[in-house]
Amino acid sequence: MKYKSFEHMNCSLAQTLDVIGERWTLLILRDAFLGTQRFSDFERSLGIAKNILASRLARLVAEGVLDKRKHEHGHAEYVLTDKGLDLQPVLLSMTHWGDKHRPDPHGVRLTFVDRRDGQPIRPMSAVAADGRPLAPREVTVGGRPGGQDR
Amino acid sequence: MKYKSFEHMNCSLAQTLDVIGERWTLLILRDAFLGTQRFSDFERSLGIAKNILASRLARLVAEGVLDKRKHEHGHAEYVLTDKGLDLQPVLLSMTHWGDKHRPDPHGVRLTFVDRRDGQPIRPMSAVAADGRPLAPREVTVGGRPGGQDR
Repeated sequence: MKYKSFEHMNCSLAQTLDVIGERWTLLILRDAFLGTQRFSDFERSLGIAKNILASRLARLVAEGVLDKRKHEHGHAEYVLTDKGLDLQPVLLSMTHWGDKHRPDPHGVRLTFVDRRDGQPIRPMSAVAADGRPLAPREVTVGGRPGGQDR
Repeated sequence: MKYKSFEHMNCSLAQTLDVIGERWTLLILRDAFLGTQRFSDFERSLGIAKNILASRLARLVAEGVLDKRKHEHGHAEYVLTDKGLDLQPVLLSMTHWGDKHRPDPHGVRLTFVDRRDGQPIRPMSAVAADGRPLAPREVTVGGRPGGQDR
């Protein structure tokens, strides 16, 4: 199945979707952030077909989001690069939205904490230059130097 | 075409993807955040097929992300609800990642600013309870009370 690529759109959101917008990709990245590295572990965790998993992993390696390394025991490992780690705010933002708007009746699922002191991080939000959290209506677009699509 | 739904996964990220994970949906939401409200304006901005646009908008209305209203001139308008506005950190995080990792050679595209003073917002990141921005490696998982899939 071929999708229309969003790559031609001169928009940073479309560019990002071109890399991570395919079904399963964000769940693969979620598992990578939680420490999964082996093909068989992704497969078992996600219940995903081998060919789809292989295709998604190959794409993430090609984009420099995952690094494919050979483990000393011979199997391949997939490890987040710095570029991949930079996707953390995307995943945290989605997770916090799901926590708030599609809550688990049994309570919060994963919580994310500051490694230094174990305190939960703040809910993801825009932050002003002086550090104030900004509600959605407090943010606006500040000019569009090169922001046209197509 | 039927996709496997992620709804059964007891994971906030999967729950969010179940709402916004379809192709085009985030670009529709981008346009909604930039002020687009009419079907014909989404269609023109995105170059998307009518039936796909109609299906994605209907889903977002059913999920309470967009509110469908009748304009005084008779046409329908699609407006972000508070639940929809809460997706702003997801879109900003994706946009900032695209700005950094797939930059426009001619410079930054859209910039997002604090409405109060016009200053650009900070790059999206996790933020500690005391307000410090946290790099990806400074964040970890703090317990999984109900975090199992399936």
